[in-house]
Amino acid sequence: MRILHHLPLSPQCRLVRLVLGEKRLPCELVIERVWEQREEFLALNPAGEVPVLVEENGLAVPGARVICEYLDEAYPDTPLLGRTLAERVEVRRLMDWFESRFAQEVTRNLLGEKVDKRLYGRGHPDGNVLRAGYGNMRFHLDYIGWLAETRSWLAGPSISMADFAAAAQLSALDFIGDVNWAKAPAAKDWYARVKSRPCFRGLLTDRMSGITPPGHYANLDF
Amino acid sequence: MRILHHLPLSPQCRLVRLVLGEKRLPCELVIERVWEQREEFLALNPAGEVPVLVEENGLAVPGARVICEYLDEAYPDTPLLGRTLAERVEVRRLMDWFESRFAQEVTRNLLGEKVDKRLYGRGHPDGNVLRAGYGNMRFHLDYIGWLAETRSWLAGPSISMADFAAAAQLSALDFIGDVNWAKAPAAKDWYARVKSRPCFRGLLTDRMSGITPPGHYANLDF
Repeated sequence: MRILHHLPLSPQCRLVRLVLGEKRLPCELVIERVWEQREEFLALNPAGEVPVLVEENGLAVPGARVICEYLDEAYPDTPLLGRTLAERVEVRRLMDWFESRFAQEVTRNLLGEKVDKRLYGRGHPDGNVLRAGYGNMRFHLDYIGWLAETRSWLAGPSISMADFAAAAQLSALDFIGDVNWAKAPAAKDWYARVKSRPCFRGLLTDRMSGITPPGHYANLDF
Repeated sequence: MRILHHLPLSPQCRLVRLVLGEKRLPCELVIERVWEQREEFLALNPAGEVPVLVEENGLAVPGARVICEYLDEAYPDTPLLGRTLAERVEVRRLMDWFESRFAQEVTRNLLGEKVDKRLYGRGHPDGNVLRAGYGNMRFHLDYIGWLAETRSWLAGPSISMADFAAAAQLSALDFIGDVNWAKAPAAKDWYARVKSRPCFRGLLTDRMSGITPPGHYANLDF
């Protein structure tokens, strides 16, 4: 059986889980406590980070972007990177946008302060960093809303890895109750569409000790 | 004519220049002062960063990784992402390694402190950050040397974007005289092989006001 080494609240891991689900590729999830730096895990990925996908034939594929490119090449039946050259540029541009810019400007400031700091024993959340994260999120939700209103899906006419990259970040923030959906109706409508897809179910049943997601987290009609 | 909006010392831009050169795709280089946040440039890339490639048909392709994937799809004659699925995983894993880990642990600590700080008027280099950068570089040069000694090229039997991603980072650091090649003979041998390719010539004739590269920078037998 295919294995995904992951952490439940990691947006990169959630992106891969969504893509695996959308492509109907069964996968066993194994939690990897990356901070323990297990030698067997470092042999799979010298960078020591999740996600790492291990195929039944033993091929280890490390890193969300590498896994996404691999899955679309190895299992092309449900293409998620776009069809034309221009579509593929736009899907990858937006994946980069959410994996780099959104992750640094929003997710790191909120999830990083509230969860990672506690996990690694690095003290309490910094109010200034949280405020910056919430401010940046408003801008990003407006951008998502604008994209969703001018196209069928974020990167164009079909659902793509760009939608899953954005939804993966937002789903992790939604788990800790940090997304103010009321202020972003267009982004909320788009997120409801992604959230109602079968591939999303696994994320909605995630539970972690010490964190209770808000009531709307698993609700498709939030 | 194809245009690349770039900055001469940006490793991401250098990566794209090497790939364009290796694929023999002519390209006009246009320096983009990203800090001026020109509206016409933000329309090409909302992230406001270089590199951005603009094709003759008007297609704008922003970001080094997006450009690299695009170029290998649009111009497959000289494939640089590997041939088999496993080769492609390894090429992309190493591209990620150099674009993320090497860039953060080495390039940002050295080029960031010595050049970017001056450019943006943010004061003098921090000695502790420089020391961390030099220490991390030793580890990375050892890793490059180990890869180059166990394979023909960094990611496998053929030269690939992984070699160009690594060489792009190192060439920018070499320009400011920050690579101690004497301590890394295996990495040096590999770098000499990449540096002697025709696609490298443009990088070696780069000059910037205010920075004089060391004598060995443009020397193929350094």
